[in-house]
Amino acid sequence: MMSPGSIRLEIKIMAQELITSRQNAAVKNVIKLKQKKNRDREKQFVLEGTKLFMEAEAWKVEFTAVFVTPQWIEGAEETVKSAFKRLKDTGIPVFTVDTSVFEAMSALKMPEGVLCTAHKIDASEKFFEKKCKKNGKKCLSYVILDDVQDPGNVGTIIRTADAAGFDGIICSSKTADIYNEKVLRGAMGSVFHLPVLQTGALEKTVLFLKEQGTRMIGTSLQGKTSLSASLAAQKAVGIILGNESKGMSKSMADLCDDLYKLPMYGHAESLNVSVAAGILMYDIARAMHE
Amino acid sequence: MMSPGSIRLEIKIMAQELITSRQNAAVKNVIKLKQKKNRDREKQFVLEGTKLFMEAEAWKVEFTAVFVTPQWIEGAEETVKSAFKRLKDTGIPVFTVDTSVFEAMSALKMPEGVLCTAHKIDASEKFFEKKCKKNGKKCLSYVILDDVQDPGNVGTIIRTADAAGFDGIICSSKTADIYNEKVLRGAMGSVFHLPVLQTGALEKTVLFLKEQGTRMIGTSLQGKTSLSASLAAQKAVGIILGNESKGMSKSMADLCDDLYKLPMYGHAESLNVSVAAGILMYDIARAMHE
Repeated sequence: MMSPGSIRLEIKIMAQELITSRQNAAVKNVIKLKQKKNRDREKQFVLEGTKLFMEAEAWKVEFTAVFVTPQWIEGAEETVKSAFKRLKDTGIPVFTVDTSVFEAMSALKMPEGVLCTAHKIDASEKFFEKKCKKNGKKCLSYVILDDVQDPGNVGTIIRTADAAGFDGIICSSKTADIYNEKVLRGAMGSVFHLPVLQTGALEKTVLFLKEQGTRMIGTSLQGKTSLSASLAAQKAVGIILGNESKGMSKSMADLCDDLYKLPMYGHAESLNVSVAAGILMYDIARAMHE
Repeated sequence: MMSPGSIRLEIKIMAQELITSRQNAAVKNVIKLKQKKNRDREKQFVLEGTKLFMEAEAWKVEFTAVFVTPQWIEGAEETVKSAFKRLKDTGIPVFTVDTSVFEAMSALKMPEGVLCTAHKIDASEKFFEKKCKKNGKKCLSYVILDDVQDPGNVGTIIRTADAAGFDGIICSSKTADIYNEKVLRGAMGSVFHLPVLQTGALEKTVLFLKEQGTRMIGTSLQGKTSLSASLAAQKAVGIILGNESKGMSKSMADLCDDLYKLPMYGHAESLNVSVAAGILMYDIARAMHE
């Protein structure tokens, strides 16, 4: 086993060329990937910060480049340094950049000093092959996002779906891009392993899942405050969440087996979509694990 | 009853002086109130946007000034125009400002064109006098925020507490200021009627509530995934939520009757605090209304 000292030496040797210009081609590529159209064309995305770096490394995300500041390398904990070394050993390009260039690349107010580019994750295959694998869990469960626009909400919903043990997420094309930096931060790494399918054919996908026996529960202010069938008795369940201001589209609402509204006991007219999603997901998760 | 035409005329007469300078004293006062220290000293705050304006007017918030753009007045719906007229009839100063000055005052990317200053709401008296008044509700319920720092989380928690029919919120002094513009926006008007107490003596307040028979449930990653007593059997319940990264303080954890952790069925290690709060609040609300 290598000592911390030898790891430090290796890192120093590797990271010798310091990038000091924003005009550097690799730096410009990162800035380009902040736009969705470029992410879609290149099939790559940007992830930033130590937490996401560690999650992506652990879940074997296919990195294409890593950018660090000398300060980040110096200050990193040993577990982080080991992950960094593992990554470097795979031959991925590692760039050391000075603080001012890093700030230009960063989306954070307080940049931590690590940022990576990586290949997008292909969820389409593993999504529909997925079988129920957890002990004691009685059915499959999906979250379907019909034009949820706020990246913070989308990130939080993905993180909650992971915590609640859901099997996958399906997003309409107008839902916030899951590779948006705010989504990635809110989801805290769940995007790297939970299958998330982005599709321009949401209705078709929902119809397919219904044919496979999935009960669709839509959340709607026009819904009832109770469900018509037991959650525990289902083979598979999908929750459909609509846009923050407009709610679900009419065509999606028509596909639902149930339209559900959480009871409002006080004066507020509605809940934030990520909170409503969380309550409903835990209702389902608890019923499935009972 | 006044016709829409006559209301429009009245508004035009009242709003004749157009402010075109950022150096205007009233404009400078608004900008000052964006800082917490000035809000604390002046005991006033700023609220912005049509939705908050309507909520504040409906809940009889004590306005001190109203700022509008000519475009906002022109484009407002009749119900909004009526509320604006009612407010003006109380003699509150109304200022019409041009778009560029309004943008300087606004906290929104897309300013709507209405912004008000108002007296802070005194929650301390009504908080502890409050009696359980809702039909079918079996006990009092509180949310206690122990240094929850993100204004978006605090706003969402207040909105959810309102929806779940909670009786009040108690915040430590390091919790995001409830008069922060992001808190107000996230809470969507719930701050105007739900008692929210901000205190430098959180432990003392929690102790007082415990002496009154309130069962304190802390949320903690070290907690158990079940509660030791039935929620429905309690006289009063308090949920304590801790800081986003550090969790509850040790002294607050020691005051809890239960330490609770939502079960993690997937790979995520934790939930966003406002989602965890929402799930737990609805558990309590449903038990109380059973």
